[in-house]
Formats: sequence, C-alpha cells, structure tokens
Amino acid sequence: MLPYKSLIRIDRKSRQPIYLQVANRFISLIQDGLIRPGTYLPGSRILAELLSLHRKTIVAAYDELASQDWVAPVPRKGMMVASNLPEIKPRTFSGARHAYEQEPAFALNEIPMLPHPRIAGRQKKLVVNDGFPDVRLAPLDEWIRECRSLIQHPAYYRHLAFSPATGNEHLRAQLVKHLSGTRGLNIIPENTMITRGAQMSIYLAAALLIHKGDYVITGSPNYYFADMTFEQLGAQLLRVPVDKDGLDVDAVERLCKKKKIKLLYVISHHHHPTTVTLSAERRMKLLEIIRQYNLAVIEDDYDYDFYYSAAPIVPLASADHGGHVIYVGSFTKSLGLSLRIGFMIAPKHFIERAAALRKLMDLGGDNLVEEALANMLKEGVVARHLKKANKVYWERRDAAGALLQQLGRQVTFQLPQGGMAIWLKFQPELDLPQMITQAASLGLTMNFPHQYFYGMQPENAIRFGFASLNQRELTQAVGIMEKAIGMQ
Amino acid sequence: MLPYKSLIRIDRKSRQPIYLQVANRFISLIQDGLIRPGTYLPGSRILAELLSLHRKTIVAAYDELASQDWVAPVPRKGMMVASNLPEIKPRTFSGARHAYEQEPAFALNEIPMLPHPRIAGRQKKLVVNDGFPDVRLAPLDEWIRECRSLIQHPAYYRHLAFSPATGNEHLRAQLVKHLSGTRGLNIIPENTMITRGAQMSIYLAAALLIHKGDYVITGSPNYYFADMTFEQLGAQLLRVPVDKDGLDVDAVERLCKKKKIKLLYVISHHHHPTTVTLSAERRMKLLEIIRQYNLAVIEDDYDYDFYYSAAPIVPLASADHGGHVIYVGSFTKSLGLSLRIGFMIAPKHFIERAAALRKLMDLGGDNLVEEALANMLKEGVVARHLKKANKVYWERRDAAGALLQQLGRQVTFQLPQGGMAIWLKFQPELDLPQMITQAASLGLTMNFPHQYFYGMQPENAIRFGFASLNQRELTQAVGIMEKAIGMQ
Repeated sequence: MLPYKSLIRIDRKSRQPIYLQVANRFISLIQDGLIRPGTYLPGSRILAELLSLHRKTIVAAYDELASQDWVAPVPRKGMMVASNLPEIKPRTFSGARHAYEQEPAFALNEIPMLPHPRIAGRQKKLVVNDGFPDVRLAPLDEWIRECRSLIQHPAYYRHLAFSPATGNEHLRAQLVKHLSGTRGLNIIPENTMITRGAQMSIYLAAALLIHKGDYVITGSPNYYFADMTFEQLGAQLLRVPVDKDGLDVDAVERLCKKKKIKLLYVISHHHHPTTVTLSAERRMKLLEIIRQYNLAVIEDDYDYDFYYSAAPIVPLASADHGGHVIYVGSFTKSLGLSLRIGFMIAPKHFIERAAALRKLMDLGGDNLVEEALANMLKEGVVARHLKKANKVYWERRDAAGALLQQLGRQVTFQLPQGGMAIWLKFQPELDLPQMITQAASLGLTMNFPHQYFYGMQPENAIRFGFASLNQRELTQAVGIMEKAIGMQ
Repeated sequence: MLPYKSLIRIDRKSRQPIYLQVANRFISLIQDGLIRPGTYLPGSRILAELLSLHRKTIVAAYDELASQDWVAPVPRKGMMVASNLPEIKPRTFSGARHAYEQEPAFALNEIPMLPHPRIAGRQKKLVVNDGFPDVRLAPLDEWIRECRSLIQHPAYYRHLAFSPATGNEHLRAQLVKHLSGTRGLNIIPENTMITRGAQMSIYLAAALLIHKGDYVITGSPNYYFADMTFEQLGAQLLRVPVDKDGLDVDAVERLCKKKKIKLLYVISHHHHPTTVTLSAERRMKLLEIIRQYNLAVIEDDYDYDFYYSAAPIVPLASADHGGHVIYVGSFTKSLGLSLRIGFMIAPKHFIERAAALRKLMDLGGDNLVEEALANMLKEGVVARHLKKANKVYWERRDAAGALLQQLGRQVTFQLPQGGMAIWLKFQPELDLPQMITQAASLGLTMNFPHQYFYGMQPENAIRFGFASLNQRELTQAVGIMEKAIGMQ
C-alpha cells in the first residue's frame, strides 16, 4: 500500500470540505500515475484510521470519486481505479508550442492610449487619486445583505441567469424613481438602459452618433477617456474653452455657425478635470443652441450625487431639450463598491439601438448584481449612503482646502461646489513632473499633468482627489507635497 | 400628537432592521409635510410604548434621523425637526418636462439587428433554446460560498474595488492553468485577458483588426452575433460552406487566392448553428493557409468544455499558428451562473491593444466576481462541475436523439460530438415557421429559423437545445413538436 498518511494531507483551515480534499488528492495521485488503473483503493475503515478521519468522510470522498468516474465499486473487492480514465486528453493534431510568443504580422487598428500615468510609489498606501470615493465608506454591510439574500434563494436566483441588453427590469424601474427624486428627471423605464458604467454609456452613445470625420465639441481640457472614445470612433475634436462657469457656450455657438457639428460632450457638474459647474445662464443658452443647430449632446453627470455648499442645478437632461440630450451617469462612484453599473437616459428609439449595439459588445449584464442594486435603491440604502458620504466628503473638501493653503503662492485653486477633487494650478516656474517624482520618493503617489491634457499641451495642473483620504491622510499628503516643492 | 400608531407600521418580515423602518417612516412624514420643521418628535419612551417596541429601537431610529440631519437634539426638549431640512432640492433652471417623449432629429448609425426571434409562449416554462446550460445544475452552493467568503472580509474586499482592463491577476493565472490542462494551450498570463464574455472578446478582437471594407470569411451559415459584429465594424462578409467536417477549407483557400482577406472566423468545436466539428485534417490545412496568406483568425471555442462520444481535438490555438489565432471562450456557458465572464488569448502586444480599447468600452470588470471565479478554478470546483454537467448533458443528448426519432422522416439530424444543441433539418414541404407557431400555442417556445441564417435565405432548420431540459421535459417538448407537425 502507498504511504497514504503522507500522500494525503488535510488542511483543516481550508474552506474546502475535508472529503473533497481527500478526493482531490486521490485524483492527483491517479493523474500522476502513482495509483494505477485497475488497482484498488484501501478500504474506507483502514484509510480512516490511517488519516485519523471519520469513516463517513472517506466514504463521501470515494462516492465523489465514483460520481466523477475515477473509480468504480467492485462487489466484495472495494473501489477499483477505472481502467478507462475519465480525464479525456484532448487529441493533438499538431505538436507545436509557444505559438503566442510570436507577434502576428498583420496590422492592428490604432487605439488612442495614454502614456502610463503613474510612477514608482504606485503600491504605496498614500495616493492622491483622480477623485475616487473612499471604499472604506462603501455600504458594504447592506451590499452583503442584498447579495446573500439573493444567492440564498436558489429558486429565485435561477430566474436571474440572464439580464437583457437594456438591463434588469426592476433596476430600470427603481432608476426612474431615483433620477426623478434626485434630479427632477421625468422619464419612463423605456428611456433607461443599465450599462457597465458611465464609460460604456459614453461609448454606446458615441458609437451610435459618430460617423468617421464628424465634428465633436469638447472642452479644453476635457475628460480624457471621452476624448479618446470619440477619436477611436473616427471623430474630429473641436475644443472650446472652459472657465469658472463651465464650457464657453458662445464659443460653441461660433463653431456651430462655421461647421456642421454632430455631437457636443458636456459635463454639467464638476467638470473633469477642472471641477467647475456649468452656470444656469449658460445652460439656458446651451439649450437654445442645441435646438437651433440640431446638436446631439452627451451630458456626462458622473459626479452629480456629491454636492456641498450649494444645491445642485438640475441637469440639462431635466430641461426642455426635445430629446437631444443623452444623459449618462454611474453608481460605481456613488457607492464605492466593486460593482460596475452605470446608466444611459435617452429617447426610447435611441435606447433600442443602443441595446442592439450593446448585444454585440457584451450581450447583457449580470442580472444578480443588478437586482441587488435595485433592492438597495428600493429600500433607501442608496439614499442613506449618499447622504452620509456627502457629509464626510464635504468635511474633507474643506479640510483639504485649508491644508492646501500651506503651499502658499505655489498653487491656486477654487474649492469645487461638489465632486471628489480639487483642480490645483501650480506656478509656471514649478517643475510639476519633477515635484511629483520627488513626492513619489517620499511615499506619495499622484498623477502626472499630461493625463489631464489629452491631445493638448499639458499645463501645470493636476486633480487632487480628496474624497478617499481622511484628515490624517490629507495632512500627510499635503505635508509631502510641501516638502517636494521645497526640494526644487 | 399625530396618530403614530397607525402612521408608523412595522413589517417584521422585512429584511430591513426595525429601527431603520421607523426612521424611514419619519423621513416620509417629514417630507410629506405631516411633521413640520421646528416641531418635536415624541419622547422615545412614549413612542416605544405606542408602537410596542423596545425603547432602544426608538433611540436608534432617532440617532439615524439625527445623523442624517433630519432632526437635532435640543437639551431638555427632545428631538426637534430641522428647520433647514437636509433634502436639498435641485435648483431648476427651466420648467420643461417630458423631453424624452420626443425622438431626436439627428441620424443614428445603423446597427445590425435580428428580427425579434421569439413569439407568444415566451413566458411559458417549456423552452427549446439555442443551446444554453441548465441553470439548475449550476454550482450555486460553491459560488455562494466563494462570494460569501470574499464579502465577509471587508479588509480583503476593499482591495477588490477596481479590476484592471486585462482582468484580475489571480484569475489570469488560474486561467493559464485551466487552459493548459483542458486544451493543451501553452501560454503565460500576459497572453490572457478577462472579458465580459465571449461576445466582448469577439468584439474587441474584431475592432482591432477590421478596417472599413475589409473582407472577413465566415461560415454559411454562421453564428449571427459574430456576423453582425463584423458588419457593424465595417467588414464585408465572404461565406464558405460548412459540411459535416466543418468549414470548407478548400473554399477558404480559393477566396484567399482571389482577394486580400483580413480575418477568418472559425468555430472549431460544435459550430454554431450546425454543431459540426472541424476535422483534424482540415485544421492542419487551415494552419497552412493562415500562415501562407497571413490571415488573422478568431477561433470561437464557446462550447469546448462539453464533449461526449469522442475526445476533443485541441483547438487551433494550441497548434503552431505563429500568433495568428485569437482564441476566445467563456465561463458563462460552462457554469450556468448569472456571471458573465469570458476570455481572449492572443500575443502580448495584441492583448495590450485590446485592453486599451476595452478601457474605452467599460474601463474594467468586477474584481470581486473575477476573484471568486479564480478561487473556484483553484479549488477544482470548476473542473468538478464540468465533469458532472458533462455526464448529464451526454445523457440528455442521447435521450433527445432517441426521442426525435418519433418525428420520423420529417426531420434529419446528426448527434453532435459535444455542445448543447442538435441541428434539426426539416423536410422542405414542412412549413417550419407555422409549425413553431403551432407549438407555441401548445405551450412550447422555440426559435425561428431566420435567426440561424443572418443575412442569408433561411433554410428549414433550427437548433434544438437539449442541455437545459431533463428527460421529462425533453419528452414533453418532442411530443408537442410531433403534435404541431401533425396539425399541418
């Protein structure tokens, strides 16, 4: 008999049941040829004693092996290892290997890419990011409760095997209520589509709208992933200035007079990267332009849920835009969980087309995850979380603002009305990339300015994401920045 | 005092804690104006008695209200409803409504769409589908265990907030092992990318390869979502016959001699829709053609995991193809859970480009879900499930084959070597759409033939997905088909 006591080791800390550990070890021993086809496994009583396990555990392990056809019971003889082993080896028709070491000789389409935005220090804990939520505040307990509740009811779970391309119906209905309550949007479920995040909404809308060579108006600067998406789809970008009141709508109008514009991309709240909010006056004017020049508009409202000193202005999508505004947003940032769920609001016909395209891109979403989010909306979990997180981020914005005064005349900024980041403009004399490299050597990771100026000459400015840092971390981060500036 | 006893109803069956139910009711009463700003809530002792709840529950509810700023404690007076209510209403800048009832006046790009494939009877339980797994066999207990284990460790969970565009690193490593063991693929993690399913892999690969006007070779017939994707991306489809040994590779070669072909799409196992497997001889020949004419190949191996009478032949991707074969597959079908996870295998440089494009489409995946799948692969859960499901589907294929004999000369078919469907060809005299409509009236839902012949003249054939039906359901389904044929 083989030295089973040493061959079959049990890990009592493993989450895997012991009988399965035993069965899996036997499978390895059979696959490795240590136990030959046609031989017999030791009797369950004997093996149980050898391994100091209950006999029932061994019987369960043998049953598992039999159910997988590795062994078969032979009357009065015990468990025989199958001579016709179930591990069917694939038939090879060609002996070659390592084919993927070679790069193919055919040309690939160009995809817009950013230079790698981060440097050494990446793995360090202290990171001033682009403006992400604090995952430590995420409504994790509530999320766990919803998921558990769904996965513990297999009968119900099985209805959730497939989500349509427009998304889970329950979530669409809850989204309508949520957007009506928070944004004054007056829509029906047929105007909604659940996506994998705001980015998928942007891609889908842009892919429906842009023909190669079309002109698209964006800000100067603008959210880089949006710009890259439009370019990828064949658009020519026309940039208009962004000042303290948001996009310069007069510049938009001048462009519309000169050229046939297909699409306008606008971030009405807390513009990325500059964090400014489009003023009510400019919104009115923009609505006129949209109608007059028959513009399609993607309104990216990724950060609406967080606002501080002032009440938010309703989005363009809530106004009288004649169906021109495709409204996109996300729950990913709002909740700070790993789930990636966003939405798109548009006329019914547009949603139908978008769903047809989405089928080609990924068929549909994860219905279970979407159902869990619907329940969180219904039960007020999302609303409660937003209220609490908003208070925390408001305090952090003010704390960050006070701390950044330490940097003196090296930096200027305006506290944003909402969102998760402050736009820091540094003096032209300061070598910002060098300062960021020095900060990294002191343990602080930040983004480089070039990523905020995709396709443009970078200015001396970066986003300071304050939301994910508590008071102590904010103090540390600004302290390191001060030191790094002093090293110049 | 308000009649709180009737205004605040507690649902003891709800999963929501009672204190939250009380707090939420108070919020509604405040929002509805029934409780006015500046008034006081009843003392916790009094309310506890009124509602027959513990006083601590009321105190917790009031704390919740205070933490959300709905009320504030006033010394010796109790909880006062805030005069400055926290529900900040968005500022409207325009009174208009119902903007999404209008359809926009701008043109949308055409998206290939199928006519709606299903008819009445859709909601009925008995469905002969395209070839989907039986969700009743899904490894749900194991999946629940993995998810629970991850979500019950917040410290770990928080590391999972973001998945890179190429996917969770642990899952990529496990995928390498899985594909090596099952398919003889010799790759490193840098050759892999985790996607939202095989469809996203097809879309990404095709979008990297296809320039408008490029020729793409597919089968006649072919998987409709692949054809639609290639057309959406601007390709011109060239179709070659599919016979019992798969794609006609001589026809492929003739096309390559005549035209500059960019891409070949091939389903080497259980071709969709016809279920045939590409023979070893044709694979050899195809590899020669690929190299000679510098073809890019998308090998869609969506159904490899299920094979019956014969051992599977390794995919083209496992052979010596010089990096030309982009290999795509999925765990969605293999596991039958709601999760949508697929993969793409390609040279490193190709994967990097694909990741850049995927960022524009949806940034990245759900890291938690990917980590849970990695654990299931590591612990052998996936291998065990596949082995068990394979046995069940094998029995069902044979049972379906025996039952379909009842239809006599009306139908001809070849049992497939693997996969989840049988390709049924009906006699030309039979009005198949009418038969399907009649079957629907008898309670059986099936697909119409047109969806299997996208862009072609439909033949009298449909897929009979047997995997999701047990013996009793198969008997019922074939019985209804027999009756429906008899009604003609």
